[in-house]
Amino acid sequence: MRSIIDTLDLTVGEIEELCDTALDMIKRPKLYSHICDDKILATLFFEPSTRTRLSFEAAMYELGGHVLSVTDMATSSASKGESMADTSKVLSAYSDIIAMRHPKEGAAFVAAENANVPVINAGDGGHCHPTQTLADMLTIYREKGHFDGLTVGLCGDLLYGRTVHSLIHALSRYEGVKFICISPSELRLPSYMKQDFNVEETTSLEEAIPMLDVLYMTRIQQERFADRQNYERLKDSYVLTPEKLSRAKSDCIVMHPLPRVKEISVAVDKDPRACYFKQVENGKYMRMALIYKLLTDAEEDHSREVRPSVSDGKKCVNPRCIVSVEQELPHRYKKDSRGVCRCIYCDSEMV
Amino acid sequence: MRSIIDTLDLTVGEIEELCDTALDMIKRPKLYSHICDDKILATLFFEPSTRTRLSFEAAMYELGGHVLSVTDMATSSASKGESMADTSKVLSAYSDIIAMRHPKEGAAFVAAENANVPVINAGDGGHCHPTQTLADMLTIYREKGHFDGLTVGLCGDLLYGRTVHSLIHALSRYEGVKFICISPSELRLPSYMKQDFNVEETTSLEEAIPMLDVLYMTRIQQERFADRQNYERLKDSYVLTPEKLSRAKSDCIVMHPLPRVKEISVAVDKDPRACYFKQVENGKYMRMALIYKLLTDAEEDHSREVRPSVSDGKKCVNPRCIVSVEQELPHRYKKDSRGVCRCIYCDSEMV
Amino acid sequence: MRSIIDTLDLTVGEIEELCDTALDMIKRPKLYSHICDDKILATLFFEPSTRTRLSFEAAMYELGGHVLSVTDMATSSASKGESMADTSKVLSAYSDIIAMRHPKEGAAFVAAENANVPVINAGDGGHCHPTQTLADMLTIYREKGHFDGLTVGLCGDLLYGRTVHSLIHALSRYEGVKFICISPSELRLPSYMKQDFNVEETTSLEEAIPMLDVLYMTRIQQERFADRQNYERLKDSYVLTPEKLSRAKSDCIVMHPLPRVKEISVAVDKDPRACYFKQVENGKYMRMALIYKLLTDAEEDHSREVRPSVSDGKKCVNPRCIVSVEQELPHRYKKDSRGVCRCIYCDSEMV
Repeated sequence: MRSIIDTLDLTVGEIEELCDTALDMIKRPKLYSHICDDKILATLFFEPSTRTRLSFEAAMYELGGHVLSVTDMATSSASKGESMADTSKVLSAYSDIIAMRHPKEGAAFVAAENANVPVINAGDGGHCHPTQTLADMLTIYREKGHFDGLTVGLCGDLLYGRTVHSLIHALSRYEGVKFICISPSELRLPSYMKQDFNVEETTSLEEAIPMLDVLYMTRIQQERFADRQNYERLKDSYVLTPEKLSRAKSDCIVMHPLPRVKEISVAVDKDPRACYFKQVENGKYMRMALIYKLLTDAEEDHSREVRPSVSDGKKCVNPRCIVSVEQELPHRYKKDSRGVCRCIYCDSEMV
Repeated sequence: MRSIIDTLDLTVGEIEELCDTALDMIKRPKLYSHICDDKILATLFFEPSTRTRLSFEAAMYELGGHVLSVTDMATSSASKGESMADTSKVLSAYSDIIAMRHPKEGAAFVAAENANVPVINAGDGGHCHPTQTLADMLTIYREKGHFDGLTVGLCGDLLYGRTVHSLIHALSRYEGVKFICISPSELRLPSYMKQDFNVEETTSLEEAIPMLDVLYMTRIQQERFADRQNYERLKDSYVLTPEKLSRAKSDCIVMHPLPRVKEISVAVDKDPRACYFKQVENGKYMRMALIYKLLTDAEEDHSREVRPSVSDGKKCVNPRCIVSVEQELPHRYKKDSRGVCRCIYCDSEMV
Repeated sequence: MRSIIDTLDLTVGEIEELCDTALDMIKRPKLYSHICDDKILATLFFEPSTRTRLSFEAAMYELGGHVLSVTDMATSSASKGESMADTSKVLSAYSDIIAMRHPKEGAAFVAAENANVPVINAGDGGHCHPTQTLADMLTIYREKGHFDGLTVGLCGDLLYGRTVHSLIHALSRYEGVKFICISPSELRLPSYMKQDFNVEETTSLEEAIPMLDVLYMTRIQQERFADRQNYERLKDSYVLTPEKLSRAKSDCIVMHPLPRVKEISVAVDKDPRACYFKQVENGKYMRMALIYKLLTDAEEDHSREVRPSVSDGKKCVNPRCIVSVEQELPHRYKKDSRGVCRCIYCDSEMV
């Protein structure tokens, strides 16, 4: 039985297989409209995320299945003090697959270790949100036909943007993908990301745009700037307008995780290169493909996944990690490729 | 592709066709119980209206379809600052038809102009609520067999009652319909309504009741009276009791939009002329007929509806209009039959 | 047409029949997965109870039916001041069966007297919660094969625990069932329960455990103790650990209504005698059996159930009774086997 906690839980081959399934679902919807007829998806949301929830629920309906919407588990007085392990077991009695959102990093992994059904991480704090990344991947795959050799521009807040970091991780597994990071100096890609990946940096969207096959826009929030004047001076440089887009390749695609506020001008919507509403649709199709894959896997293999780990007294001190609130959880870690001991739940360094 | 924003978007012929479809659904439910099997209705509610939501959701289930319940869009932090146009486009990716409730007048029209699927207005502020009116129409049609020549009594708060105003607009399109408006002088029908329609007025329910084919009761709220003593003196005159009803015709029907508080005595419920619980049921059937009609239309015609309008600097200053909160919306108007420039969203006069 | 307000509304024969249906549903799920295809369950919750709601909704989905989730009726501004009778009639227009939760005792009975569809009480204040008891019964029946002659240990808070009281009432209808009540002296079974049933009492879980066929654990809340030191001294005695369980029979089953906090150590979960997660699953199957039974009954018999009662001026003064908030409800009673006049809604003594 498989659960999906991080995009990187999937091999390159599996991601392409998911993309192909999604494309077939788009092409031949009738073939799939009843394949989950007797199945139940629980959307177990410990914090609101309406779009993500709706995307999963629409996906399940498109497959003919049922949805158990659970948005009040966190405030349920009955559940106060109940462990994530117990909650996962209870929900397993009510559903065939769980899509889970939680404010704490690693929460979905704890659920996956205890549930009797597959768990899809629908966001665990700032940690992972694999179905957003898969939606982005499908959009690129659907529009460009491949990942290899693409030049991908990432524009906006690259310091805090989880979406962008995940996409870099996922795309860097392909040959010859080049990243151009376009941001004000305050919001540059974190240095640990720059170590790991080969990225170019620039502060100018206008200069970078002609080189791009993909332009991924994100929002710049005023709160991120220490200096309000700096924000006012800079903000318009990172707004995509028809003028700026006129310098792009004719087959460059424009993406955005939505909601947008002003970072893409409404006048761009009519441009055939604008793909952000298609991205929403692709998110639904990719979730359909993923639900179908995991339910099929689960029918063949009932065993729960195990992640090897060590518990020897080292502690995770990340206040956003699930171990900080679930008192009975053991602190566990594994070593990464550089030998750093990383928390099995949130991937932060142990002390 | 059709959307329904106002009852008057439908012709007299279309309303009778909807009524006939609804009556057939009542008579032969099995014929319709799977016609929306693979369709998704999104109930997009920006303010709570539990009964309206449930009526739409029950309607979709009776047709075999799926329901995406969206009651948290307004508070969703992700959506803050997102335009209605973008929200409509996102929801179009998740559903085949949208029933939308919003506190601002004209909001459903903005959604209809941007969505890729049909939109049904489930209430836009105090502006329109066409499915309530259609439920009332079906009740009259089902009980009386026709609209022409009916004498319709409207009792209670006729000043603020949107339900009553819409019903007058809708019924006045038929031959020989006579309205008797029964209310305290404080709560008379607004004068602009009296100009347009031929109505009689009285303060006495007891005197009016023998003439009526239809008695439409509404609630009188104490807050509407400047003078509490006046309210206390008057309130019982507008309560329907078995005694007052004994003076009505044997085939007069009693209606109420519900919930009632005390304006119809519980003892009236047993009277075969009491139709207010049937009205609830009819509301569901009329919504079934409407969902079916719009989904069928949408399959044949994918183009979005366009309302011709002028934008020349005139402004809508109605603080309840959607333009007061959606900053990127252009102020637009059309001229009514008297030549008055009316806002395309909320129908109020431009300045 | 049947409604279920109290477990005791069902005969011993009917409960066994329900258990047999549930076991058949577990064994041959495909046989039942579409028997409610065109039916709608409304979960009408006037107070949150996420688990109970999810169990009903999952049950309906397993039968192929639709669910109308109504968790906002109480706060719906439109419904303020509407009587329970009217609300029940409105919901009858939208659904084929209602599962209702309400904070006031007797509320589900009022709904059942007015609805046109069967009503299942999903908890009415501290009064009844029949589907929890039925889930407990199925668990015992499934694991032990019978009820007669069992020795049942009840451990924890026996003073306030509604679950435990209901289970004693239900099991005492079988031959030779023996109850051993294990609690601190502050939280003993109420004296009126001890009068009616033959129970043994002890303060020691360790001493009682070897005699038990069933051990039903409940939570002990600190708030119940006047004296904090007393709580600290006692709490660990009522925590089930592998050590304590090692003294139990090899076929003793351990139950808990969940959520647990610390009253059963996580190490017990692996023991094959631990049945509390199976209880969750059984709750779903028992609700499936009950929904199926009531819908089948309702198809054959459309008449509403009537409970004979007397209204002669005697009053119910229980502040938790539905008559304390529904002003139009008549005070009604019936005499119990001892001749005491008991409120028809909440079973408390009239004055």
